[in-house]
Amino acid sequence: MKKEPLYIIKVGGNIIDDEEKLNSFLTSFVHVKGKKILVHGGGKIATKLAEELNIPQQMVDGRRITNSETLKVATMVYAGYINKQIVATLNSLQVRTLGLTGVDAGFIKAHKINHPSIDFGFVGEVDAVDTNFLLSLITLDLTLVIAPITQDESGQLLNTNADTIAQEIAKAMSEKMEITLVYSFEKKGVLKDIDDEESFIPMINLSCFEKMKEEHTIFAGMIPKLDNAFEAIGAGVNKVIIGDASNLQELLDGKSGTVIC
Amino acid sequence: MKKEPLYIIKVGGNIIDDEEKLNSFLTSFVHVKGKKILVHGGGKIATKLAEELNIPQQMVDGRRITNSETLKVATMVYAGYINKQIVATLNSLQVRTLGLTGVDAGFIKAHKINHPSIDFGFVGEVDAVDTNFLLSLITLDLTLVIAPITQDESGQLLNTNADTIAQEIAKAMSEKMEITLVYSFEKKGVLKDIDDEESFIPMINLSCFEKMKEEHTIFAGMIPKLDNAFEAIGAGVNKVIIGDASNLQELLDGKSGTVIC
Repeated sequence: MKKEPLYIIKVGGNIIDDEEKLNSFLTSFVHVKGKKILVHGGGKIATKLAEELNIPQQMVDGRRITNSETLKVATMVYAGYINKQIVATLNSLQVRTLGLTGVDAGFIKAHKINHPSIDFGFVGEVDAVDTNFLLSLITLDLTLVIAPITQDESGQLLNTNADTIAQEIAKAMSEKMEITLVYSFEKKGVLKDIDDEESFIPMINLSCFEKMKEEHTIFAGMIPKLDNAFEAIGAGVNKVIIGDASNLQELLDGKSGTVIC
Repeated sequence: MKKEPLYIIKVGGNIIDDEEKLNSFLTSFVHVKGKKILVHGGGKIATKLAEELNIPQQMVDGRRITNSETLKVATMVYAGYINKQIVATLNSLQVRTLGLTGVDAGFIKAHKINHPSIDFGFVGEVDAVDTNFLLSLITLDLTLVIAPITQDESGQLLNTNADTIAQEIAKAMSEKMEITLVYSFEKKGVLKDIDDEESFIPMINLSCFEKMKEEHTIFAGMIPKLDNAFEAIGAGVNKVIIGDASNLQELLDGKSGTVIC
C-alpha cells in the first residue's frame, strides 16, 4: 500500500524573529496541501530575552550552553511565546493547529548530552520518537507545530536542537508515511559561498557532497545540515529539500531550493 | 447510560510558585484515579518576570491589565515555563500528560473583553469550548494540563482567567461526562474569615450563600469563586469542591474541603 505523504518543515534562521518574514512563511505554509508538521526554533528571540534579564549566553559548536536560567528562557520563548503565536496565526488562517513540545505526552525520549570535554548543561539528545502518538494526532486532522524542548526520564526539561528534532521525527515517521523533510530559511538553498546567492546548488548527492567537503568548496555552516539530510535519507526519508522559507510550494514542486537525493 | 467521571482540577493561589507545595500537589494529583484535567495559573511568577523586565503591572478586579508586553510575559510563563514543567513532572511520575492552551486546535473560542469603563487590554472572555476535541484527547488516555491563554478569531492571543477556563470546560463537558470541578489552593476551603482557618465551611448551598453575601459573613475574595461554582452547578456540573491542594483525594472523598451543592 502506498504510504500517505507527510511534510515535515523546519523553519529557522532569521524568519522567526522577523514579523513580516514569519507571516509570509506562515501564509506559504498554509498553502502546502496534505498532512504537515512544522518544527521551529527561535534562538534570536531567546538571546534577546536573556540579554534583557542579564543572563550571559554562550554558544559552542552551534549549541547554546544551557544553565537553569537559560533553560527557563528557552522554554518560555520556544514553547510559550513563539509556539503559541504561530499556532494562533495558523488557526486564524483556518488551519486547525496544535502546539507541542517533545515533553507533551513524553513523545520524544531524550537524555542530557554528555560531552567528554564541554559542559553544555541542560541540552538534550533525542533517543526515540513516539510515532503512534503523532499519528493519532495527525489522524484527528491536526497540523502540528513543534517547539524544541524535550525532557529526560526524571522530568528534567532539555533544550534541544530544532534541526535534530525535525530530522528524528522524519526518520521515525518514515516507517509509516512518505516523508518530505524541508529545512527552510532565508537563503535560496545550499550555497558554495554563503555571501553569494549565485553559488546556489540545485541538487546534491552523497558522493558530490563528500567531494565538496574534501575540496572545501562548500560553506562550512551548511555541513551539519547536509550531514543530517543524508542521514535522514539513509534512514528512509523520501526526500530532503533545503531552501527559501518564503515559497514552500515552489520548494516542494522542485522549482527552487536544493534537493538532496 | 451512566456518564464516565471526569475531574477538572484548578490549582492556583500560592501553590504554583512554591516548588515544594507544587510537587506535593502534583503527587496528590497523580493519585486521583480516573480521567482528569488540570488547569493552572501562575500569576506570581508572571508578576516577578514582568518586574525583572521593568514592565509595570496593574490588577483591577482581580484581572491583570494586559498590554502587549504583559501578554508576552503571560504567554511565556503560563504556556511555556509553568505548563511544560508540570507536564514533564507528571510524565516522570508515569502519568502520560499533554500540555495545552485554549489556542491549541483553537479549542477555546474567546474574544477580547470589552469593559464599559476600564481598558483591560488583551484579556479574553470565553465564548465556547470544543468538547469533541477534548474528548478525542481524553480517549487517547492523555491527562491534560491547560494554561490560561486563548485567542480570538483574528489570531490575537488573550490572557484569560484560569478559574473561568476551568469552569467553562466543566460546564461544556458536563453534557458528555460526569464532572467534578475542584478549585484547589492553599486554604482548607471556603472561609468566613480569610485569616481564620477555623471559620471553614464544609458545605454550602445557594440559599445559604445568598444569605451570607447579604449579611457580609463571608470573605469577599471567595465570592467570585462561589458565584462561578453555583453557575457551574446550574449548568450541569455534578459537584464543585473548594479546598486544600495538598490532598486532592481527601477532597474528592468528601473528607475535607467545601462542597458546593
